[in-house]
Amino acid sequence: MSKLVECIPNVSEGRDQKKIDQMAAAVRQISGAWLLDVDSDAAHNRTVITFVGAPDAVERAMLSLVTQAIELIDLREHCGEHPRMGAVDVIPFVPIKGMTMDECVDISKRVGQAIWERFLVPVYLYERSASRREREDLAKIRQGEFEGFPAKIEEPEWAPDFGDRKIHPTAGVVAVGARMPLIAFNVNLGTDDLEIAQRIAKAVRHSSGGLRYVKALGFKIEERGIVQVSMNMTHYQETPLYRAFALVQREAERYGISIVGSEIVGLVPREALYQSAEFFLQLEEFQREQVLEDRIERAMTKHG
Amino acid sequence: MSKLVECIPNVSEGRDQKKIDQMAAAVRQISGAWLLDVDSDAAHNRTVITFVGAPDAVERAMLSLVTQAIELIDLREHCGEHPRMGAVDVIPFVPIKGMTMDECVDISKRVGQAIWERFLVPVYLYERSASRREREDLAKIRQGEFEGFPAKIEEPEWAPDFGDRKIHPTAGVVAVGARMPLIAFNVNLGTDDLEIAQRIAKAVRHSSGGLRYVKALGFKIEERGIVQVSMNMTHYQETPLYRAFALVQREAERYGISIVGSEIVGLVPREALYQSAEFFLQLEEFQREQVLEDRIERAMTKHG
Repeated sequence: MSKLVECIPNVSEGRDQKKIDQMAAAVRQISGAWLLDVDSDAAHNRTVITFVGAPDAVERAMLSLVTQAIELIDLREHCGEHPRMGAVDVIPFVPIKGMTMDECVDISKRVGQAIWERFLVPVYLYERSASRREREDLAKIRQGEFEGFPAKIEEPEWAPDFGDRKIHPTAGVVAVGARMPLIAFNVNLGTDDLEIAQRIAKAVRHSSGGLRYVKALGFKIEERGIVQVSMNMTHYQETPLYRAFALVQREAERYGISIVGSEIVGLVPREALYQSAEFFLQLEEFQREQVLEDRIERAMTKHG
Repeated sequence: MSKLVECIPNVSEGRDQKKIDQMAAAVRQISGAWLLDVDSDAAHNRTVITFVGAPDAVERAMLSLVTQAIELIDLREHCGEHPRMGAVDVIPFVPIKGMTMDECVDISKRVGQAIWERFLVPVYLYERSASRREREDLAKIRQGEFEGFPAKIEEPEWAPDFGDRKIHPTAGVVAVGARMPLIAFNVNLGTDDLEIAQRIAKAVRHSSGGLRYVKALGFKIEERGIVQVSMNMTHYQETPLYRAFALVQREAERYGISIVGSEIVGLVPREALYQSAEFFLQLEEFQREQVLEDRIERAMTKHG
């Protein structure tokens, strides 16, 4: 397959397994789309569905999922810890193979328009698809949540990108956009002092002067008696894992503290691991075609 | 493809491009075998041909190559810098996917027997296929080379594993065996002192007390004014790249010298890079199924 796009919709149902299965099935039934993961959180009452495929199959699968979600979810009866504004809350499209970001932006706009036209759910374009700066950040769009949106949608600066200024009665509104793959990368520190994790998070994250493509927060991991710098790497090609790791390590040293471990939550692109091996092993002129399995795949594709 | 084996025959022709092409074509014409690389060295007068495929296709491709090589190469007229004892000098089989080492040993024995029966070239089994300890090391088998073999083959301890005690007049003898993938990994040091590279090589290699699956030598890189510890990693799962790297680094520090870079020559299994990323990033409980592309491949294979 020459073009591959990933879609990671978040739906506002994380408890009713039958409904979750029905939504996953809506994706699975589309030929050319492959379901990778279904991750439900009961406390959040939210499910993250991950699938990939050729662009047209992914568009069809996403609309199939929206159809099912609108039928099954009534946000008026929804509660959970995670903020949400829609039955399908957010729909990011991510370029995986043979795709530009612009092509993913186009997909997000086509899907956004279709969601308004077919389902009368107002659509906000976010991240790389955003029509203006202040809509890049999903958190800002979602502020006020489902309950606050009937008022928010009428504010002058919050007209939807697709649709009228009126939320769908049970499905609310939805954010649709294109973004880079996101890596959830947590680094654990050998201390129980939360303030240190918070200070280091502040040092490494973009919003307070740190690395361009890092979001970070400090957390306590009670059961292990340690603290964690929890990061979202929003563009691993530009701000690689190893650089964030090295910076956390250096900042921790300043307090005499070591890194005791780290974790990647969810999926990670292969290239992010190659980059780290290349950096730490100090490889010179390492070509990706030197990777045995990649060479095999290329030979098999070429010669049929 | 569920089972994949790699074969990396070395043939004693590295100058005549037409002959080299004919030998590569002998592999290419076999359906189910994929040619990955053809690497000729004129000074060595030797070519390394790399291909993969399902076990039966790889066996057929290898015998097709032997047929062609015996027709094209006359060792009585061969000279080059690299030691050699056969027109096809050595044939290693390497497990890549869904294969055990024992299965590769079986393949090597079937191919060895066929080479004797069809071509009357005596065969020595080496590495993991060796019938006795002293035949594990290819260098020991090859000692004496083509010119010395008519005498060597009559020595009591050098009876071939397949064949009579008489070399093939133009094709000599051949070593066939199964082994782990080999990674050629060189580490460059910020000094021009060859003795330091040699001392570090001695420290890290198995034969003189170092790491179990490392062979190492010290070299000068004249054009850069530095020295290099050149390593063959013979079992990267047991002795990973990062461990050899870290040991070279520590030994170099003792002389106040830093690593200025490293290089992987030829192919490297993906897993060797994953291991290094995992080590240096201190990843806890990292699962290979978290790698996005691997997850996609699995999903596509499973659901068709």
